[in-house]
Amino acid sequence: MLHSSTRHEVLTAVFQVRHFADRVYPGRAGDVRHATGTGELAVLLWQRALDPQAGAWSLPGGLLGEDEDLTTSARRQLAEKVDVREVSHLEQLSVFSDPYRIPGPRTIASTFLGLVPLPADPKLPPDTAWHPVSELPDMAFDHGTVVQHARTRLAAKLSYTNLAFGLAPAEFSMSTLREIYCAALGYQVDATNLQRVLGRRGVLTPTGNTAPSGRTGGRPAALYRFTDSTLRVTDEFAALRPPS
Amino acid sequence: MLHSSTRHEVLTAVFQVRHFADRVYPGRAGDVRHATGTGELAVLLWQRALDPQAGAWSLPGGLLGEDEDLTTSARRQLAEKVDVREVSHLEQLSVFSDPYRIPGPRTIASTFLGLVPLPADPKLPPDTAWHPVSELPDMAFDHGTVVQHARTRLAAKLSYTNLAFGLAPAEFSMSTLREIYCAALGYQVDATNLQRVLGRRGVLTPTGNTAPSGRTGGRPAALYRFTDSTLRVTDEFAALRPPS
Repeated sequence: MLHSSTRHEVLTAVFQVRHFADRVYPGRAGDVRHATGTGELAVLLWQRALDPQAGAWSLPGGLLGEDEDLTTSARRQLAEKVDVREVSHLEQLSVFSDPYRIPGPRTIASTFLGLVPLPADPKLPPDTAWHPVSELPDMAFDHGTVVQHARTRLAAKLSYTNLAFGLAPAEFSMSTLREIYCAALGYQVDATNLQRVLGRRGVLTPTGNTAPSGRTGGRPAALYRFTDSTLRVTDEFAALRPPS
Repeated sequence: MLHSSTRHEVLTAVFQVRHFADRVYPGRAGDVRHATGTGELAVLLWQRALDPQAGAWSLPGGLLGEDEDLTTSARRQLAEKVDVREVSHLEQLSVFSDPYRIPGPRTIASTFLGLVPLPADPKLPPDTAWHPVSELPDMAFDHGTVVQHARTRLAAKLSYTNLAFGLAPAEFSMSTLREIYCAALGYQVDATNLQRVLGRRGVLTPTGNTAPSGRTGGRPAALYRFTDSTLRVTDEFAALRPPS
């Protein structure tokens, strides 16, 4: 049992709900580009210029610096790809520690989930782009697995925390919030149920403002904000709360 | 920004609800030992024989082996302290990565939460003992912080998952289950509420058996088991479930 030194890298799956207005659907009528009006969950990737795996897409990240902890390292490395002030939430996910996960010296990866709110449109370097999570390009090493882990964590946390604050604008209508949940979960949810459940759990606060009514006319939509902008468990299992 | 190699260790906070029949309460009538009838959350620690910090108490763990991943390493290292077949649940917690967390070469710690069910009484090596989490001894390095993180994670997960399966016997009365929840959460919960909430969420299944009535007589207690013995989120936010 040797205990050799290892290298330690940090990888972050940064998610944002985005509109892919100009989207290729391979196989549909000769790869016709469709404009889609619905937000999709997207992940930030950069394309490797050099071997190993030149041309494959990677998560932003890199080796841990000698004098920084993991969170500091994740923020530093994201700053090279996006303005970190636009990252509304960052949390540690699993460690990927398979001895043979990448070629060369053994490298352990600590992974993070990062969220960017809907209206932000960070300026990206030329090697970097958003990709729909449902249609990942050719991914480097185990980075595709990291993206799926991050997406699973995000979807699970949407059900028992207020984590959607990290994807939502400061103020939003229920139809915008529904679009965010549908994109992040990957299936349709009903806006009325969503409002009822989040309302009961105190997750949302009405701002008193309304949005102009859309194309179809009708009443102006009430606007909401998240009551908290840091993570909290919203279903605290009321029966088990400490006596107040 | 140097990217030197680092050492990587694995530390596990192993919890069990235990009865400390022979417990010292300092300050109460000259450190009288009291027998306590109530289970307390306990953590498995070993006492360091050598410097650094000889005499302080440590979590079981050690350096990651060259050819093993983190989970394999955690299980191997626990096997040196307890029979790993008695560990009913093991999950990754945070990575502790402060560059100066321990003296000597930089060492990053991946931490785990381990659970041992109530009836098990693993044979321990002479340097190892269970300690009540509420009264930790002098702890080595940042291991006290790791214990608190693990306890916080356990308490949070009890509210939205079936994780108590890891602490409970195969078959139990509601009063035993209540004792486990009280110990793990650190405050009193009501058995009727607990049964109602867990029942509604499908966490418990009646076994059809009963326990002999206790000292006070009365009806024999119905016995239950956990419906699942792997972790699942029990509050899946029904309104947001995928259409079936």
